[in-house]
Amino acid sequence: MHFASDNWSGAHPRIAESLTRHAQGFASAYGTSDLDKAVEDQFSTIFEREVAVFFVATGTAANSLALASVAKAGGVSFCHADAHVNADEGGAPEFLTSGTRLFGVEGAEGRIDPQALEAAIARFEPASPHHGRAMAVTVTQATEVGTVYTLEELDRIAAIAKARDLPLHMDGARFANALVALDATPAEMTWKRGVDILSFGGTKNGCWCAEAIVFFDPEMAADMPFIRKRSAQLFSKSRFISAQLEAYLDGNLWLDLAGHSNAMADRLRSGLAAKNTARLAWDTTANEVFAVIEKSSAERARAKGAKFHEWQPPHGWLPLPAENEVLVRLVTSFATTVEDVDQFLEVV
Amino acid sequence: MHFASDNWSGAHPRIAESLTRHAQGFASAYGTSDLDKAVEDQFSTIFEREVAVFFVATGTAANSLALASVAKAGGVSFCHADAHVNADEGGAPEFLTSGTRLFGVEGAEGRIDPQALEAAIARFEPASPHHGRAMAVTVTQATEVGTVYTLEELDRIAAIAKARDLPLHMDGARFANALVALDATPAEMTWKRGVDILSFGGTKNGCWCAEAIVFFDPEMAADMPFIRKRSAQLFSKSRFISAQLEAYLDGNLWLDLAGHSNAMADRLRSGLAAKNTARLAWDTTANEVFAVIEKSSAERARAKGAKFHEWQPPHGWLPLPAENEVLVRLVTSFATTVEDVDQFLEVV
Amino acid sequence: MHFASDNWSGAHPRIAESLTRHAQGFASAYGTSDLDKAVEDQFSTIFEREVAVFFVATGTAANSLALASVAKAGGVSFCHADAHVNADEGGAPEFLTSGTRLFGVEGAEGRIDPQALEAAIARFEPASPHHGRAMAVTVTQATEVGTVYTLEELDRIAAIAKARDLPLHMDGARFANALVALDATPAEMTWKRGVDILSFGGTKNGCWCAEAIVFFDPEMAADMPFIRKRSAQLFSKSRFISAQLEAYLDGNLWLDLAGHSNAMADRLRSGLAAKNTARLAWDTTANEVFAVIEKSSAERARAKGAKFHEWQPPHGWLPLPAENEVLVRLVTSFATTVEDVDQFLEVV
Amino acid sequence: MHFASDNWSGAHPRIAESLTRHAQGFASAYGTSDLDKAVEDQFSTIFEREVAVFFVATGTAANSLALASVAKAGGVSFCHADAHVNADEGGAPEFLTSGTRLFGVEGAEGRIDPQALEAAIARFEPASPHHGRAMAVTVTQATEVGTVYTLEELDRIAAIAKARDLPLHMDGARFANALVALDATPAEMTWKRGVDILSFGGTKNGCWCAEAIVFFDPEMAADMPFIRKRSAQLFSKSRFISAQLEAYLDGNLWLDLAGHSNAMADRLRSGLAAKNTARLAWDTTANEVFAVIEKSSAERARAKGAKFHEWQPPHGWLPLPAENEVLVRLVTSFATTVEDVDQFLEVV
Repeated sequence: MHFASDNWSGAHPRIAESLTRHAQGFASAYGTSDLDKAVEDQFSTIFEREVAVFFVATGTAANSLALASVAKAGGVSFCHADAHVNADEGGAPEFLTSGTRLFGVEGAEGRIDPQALEAAIARFEPASPHHGRAMAVTVTQATEVGTVYTLEELDRIAAIAKARDLPLHMDGARFANALVALDATPAEMTWKRGVDILSFGGTKNGCWCAEAIVFFDPEMAADMPFIRKRSAQLFSKSRFISAQLEAYLDGNLWLDLAGHSNAMADRLRSGLAAKNTARLAWDTTANEVFAVIEKSSAERARAKGAKFHEWQPPHGWLPLPAENEVLVRLVTSFATTVEDVDQFLEVV
Repeated sequence: MHFASDNWSGAHPRIAESLTRHAQGFASAYGTSDLDKAVEDQFSTIFEREVAVFFVATGTAANSLALASVAKAGGVSFCHADAHVNADEGGAPEFLTSGTRLFGVEGAEGRIDPQALEAAIARFEPASPHHGRAMAVTVTQATEVGTVYTLEELDRIAAIAKARDLPLHMDGARFANALVALDATPAEMTWKRGVDILSFGGTKNGCWCAEAIVFFDPEMAADMPFIRKRSAQLFSKSRFISAQLEAYLDGNLWLDLAGHSNAMADRLRSGLAAKNTARLAWDTTANEVFAVIEKSSAERARAKGAKFHEWQPPHGWLPLPAENEVLVRLVTSFATTVEDVDQFLEVV
Repeated sequence: MHFASDNWSGAHPRIAESLTRHAQGFASAYGTSDLDKAVEDQFSTIFEREVAVFFVATGTAANSLALASVAKAGGVSFCHADAHVNADEGGAPEFLTSGTRLFGVEGAEGRIDPQALEAAIARFEPASPHHGRAMAVTVTQATEVGTVYTLEELDRIAAIAKARDLPLHMDGARFANALVALDATPAEMTWKRGVDILSFGGTKNGCWCAEAIVFFDPEMAADMPFIRKRSAQLFSKSRFISAQLEAYLDGNLWLDLAGHSNAMADRLRSGLAAKNTARLAWDTTANEVFAVIEKSSAERARAKGAKFHEWQPPHGWLPLPAENEVLVRLVTSFATTVEDVDQFLEVV
Repeated sequence: MHFASDNWSGAHPRIAESLTRHAQGFASAYGTSDLDKAVEDQFSTIFEREVAVFFVATGTAANSLALASVAKAGGVSFCHADAHVNADEGGAPEFLTSGTRLFGVEGAEGRIDPQALEAAIARFEPASPHHGRAMAVTVTQATEVGTVYTLEELDRIAAIAKARDLPLHMDGARFANALVALDATPAEMTWKRGVDILSFGGTKNGCWCAEAIVFFDPEMAADMPFIRKRSAQLFSKSRFISAQLEAYLDGNLWLDLAGHSNAMADRLRSGLAAKNTARLAWDTTANEVFAVIEKSSAERARAKGAKFHEWQPPHGWLPLPAENEVLVRLVTSFATTVEDVDQFLEVV
């Protein structure tokens, strides 16, 4: 009953098998091998246009270096107040962009409120050096709290960004889960919406360590080889990432894994919704479920071995848990089983 | 005939097998799993004292964050002029230490000349903010050019560092190769010599990606969790590093692999020394061989599929290659075979 | 009728005279002259203890380098949401501290709300690298909006900071105005309250350019000579600052100037309070007055040559200006005259 | 007998007078006043083209922010090994450019050797992220050791820079002294030679504190308002710089002062050359004189109150001082008198 996080799972057998297969032989280093190139090409295929791809070590690195690629002195990037880049990356975005700032914008259920975004950007006049200047907008898809922006919602965010000539970045740590939830293509959910740069995450969805920064306009990436190297994120045996991604992308494994993960979340959602002792905190469609359950239920589940985190109620969310209740986050992954879900539903 | 670099090889079968084995199941993330802890303990055993261990993504990250952990405003770190940290890390040490400086010290055959080191440090008076101030000394063991500091040579460098209260860092990208070349224990080659921080490299010696920063005084590492996170080097599924290192350290696999690699280099060395058309550029004892060969030989070898790099003659090294000669670097690895070596010796 | 800002004024005649007097002769550079030392000693006298003093070029530099002196990887400094350091320094605090973050805390009338401060700090567990870690608390005295913390209020903020071992910094861009408003001594308003580092501002109060960072524990300042030089803030002809401060501090000129400035603000306050067409937005005691006036009055005053800025209503402040009203900021300085004030009161 | 440095002098009476005159009245802050604009226009007049001008606090700031304006990830700037930017700025250029690197190029008598510059640049292939990439060339005019590049020498350096599309920066801390020594116009010595950015120094030549960054193509300066603010170098009462520069530039005061200073150095040069107990170390033409004198002479002069610094013999300079000799630097300034020089020549 592992619902603590999707990064508590390991690697999918086909990922592991690919690593073993490519462990033999020799290949040129630092991202120049045939396999590296083949996987990069595969990204262009998947996104239906020529893209520039840069592997990095962590999702935090992907987000931070994406912002570094568009950084300016006094720059301010706009994100949701509870976004990972704002709340959970230990100062990396600020540090790796040489001190640019994140501005947390409010919005219900993890999605940036467009009006709040416009108001936030408007605080920074383009020509004044005193307050800083707008530099980028970054959205998380799926969000930190299991929700997903619709394509129309992304259009609206993109329009606001473009009106101020701001590049739009998408944190896709759970990109595949969002794709499956929307039943959209990678192109439809990104550059067709106005996304310029994507943090493409594979780690949470069955890889060991496979994060990439994808530029939909390769010219925007001209400095990236230097930015990545300067940040100590250029792997020597780069093909160990490529080997994972080769299997991950092959035959749509990635979408299958996300599909499974979302389905397990659906099973959790409907199971919890049917209970008297629990209620869903808000609607989610990706692989995270937030529920208010009785404290005694939570304790009982933990005693039986269930792993999950309590969650800080988001700003403005109502109704708050009662005295005897607690808000919990339940995350499914490629490795979650029907049995796990059903057992959890039983013990809660 | 792959002698371009030890990072052109893949992963040893036992490393791959360990990754596959640990791919199953769930474990807490961000370095907190039982496996992570077990591998950290293994480091303490190997080094015969309690150490603090931090996994990072690349050797460049290990060196840069080691320096970041002792960084000061206006700081200057002293290294060999041709050290990787000075010549090949794309500005990462400067960037990740917020602009401290590296000072390249000369020395024959890749080893810092102690007198030159003393003179270099003496240029920076402790109390003057104008010139910067001495911050650290960093040695590479084995060096970039295949040589190894003797324990006595390390003592001398350490004494110079300690006389100015400077921490001593060792870049151990080829740590195992040096250990085997010296027939020393890890403790003897590090903290017993005065080394404070070690970049422990596993990648070049049979891992996919396994680099660690080792602090011999854990108190010196108090800030490291924050420094690492801020630099986007904290892996979520950290155990994919631990899984590699578990196998790497188990049953002295690491030393066996380095022993094989060095032995292959020995075979190259003695084979080349016996030739009329080649000469060893300088004595090396680790897994790199530098030779002056006729250009026609180099071309012939390449035509037969041999991979190797030409090398820029080091500052002050004599005699320089003749018109019809070229200086080449040949690197062996755990994956180099006797057949490869012998075939190369034949075609050169 | 110059009420736009206290930095629109020039320099007091005694400051100018001191600059002229010291323009002759020779003196050692970079802060080592006799005059520099004498002025530093004068600071120790004024603060009734041995302090370490560092001149810098701007108030932004003073604040930023004060924070740099206590910076940590992943650090978060807590300030009022509308504090100058958060709202008006163009990213300098983040940049010059290598990417630490500011966390804006709410509070009425420009003063940090103690409960909000406690809650904000509590969000950052000391041992987790994910969210960042608390690094400093910084208060502005007088605040950006003309108010002043009482000594008891400072005690409360300091107690919260100390409970988490956080250094307490005071932005004293209008330090003298606050001192006069409270009728407190420099010692009483700083280290006796728990302030560790002070940005001491002279520029707004009659100097051309005289900003200093004062450490009440000189040992905390050990790195400052290097931090200042690294930030390009070490003046060569440092005595041009000292010359200003010599006159500024001599015979309590600084307090007299602030006293005049505050008195002019008092005159404005009582004059506006007596009007039908204006109301004070909130009580202030230093040299800034915030008033809601009719738009037609504002236009009339401007037409007659009055200079002042409209002000963005602070978050949560009520009642907001009506349709035909506007919130304005009026700042007095050492150079404001009774005639200016009275003429303004007349035309509004 | 003050020959320690030109920054030991104070301010010229006309500079002091201008400060006093402008001390009255009110003017808009942060570089937006009429006086600021007038002085900026004056720069365009002097340089015979439209330039963008940014005042900063120190020469170190001017150099560092000039480089920051052209900084790139992994960037390397080429300067003379003994240039101020490389030897005396305490890490500011590295820090304020987010970790770019300086590469010290050798060259006799303080001037970059063109061949050495070409070789240095050639070490950095444009497309490889490993070694860093060339970013800028910076020359010092007059040099640190009293010499001056001829216009032809500047042409040659510029041609090398332009061949690699590198911006050319000139550190003009002693710009006026060089102009006078060459009898060239400001335009001839800068943009007509290919200089893109100039650090224009007034402090050493009779101002209190007047340093400016001049861009000969204003479009290159688009980010500078943000870069300067982010580095805490935007003065609020900016006109205190403008007031100095107004007087400095008026009626060619700046050239007269430099002319005087150079003439005093000439008097020193010819006086020392005529002595048996002293010899000029190398030919200089600006306001610095380097001489080898007997130690006993140096002691005698000091005993009589002469101030000067001993100097580290430059790399490769011959013949070195004998046992009983010492290399000294003598710097003249606008405030040096004929009596001072003659008295010094007498006592040496």
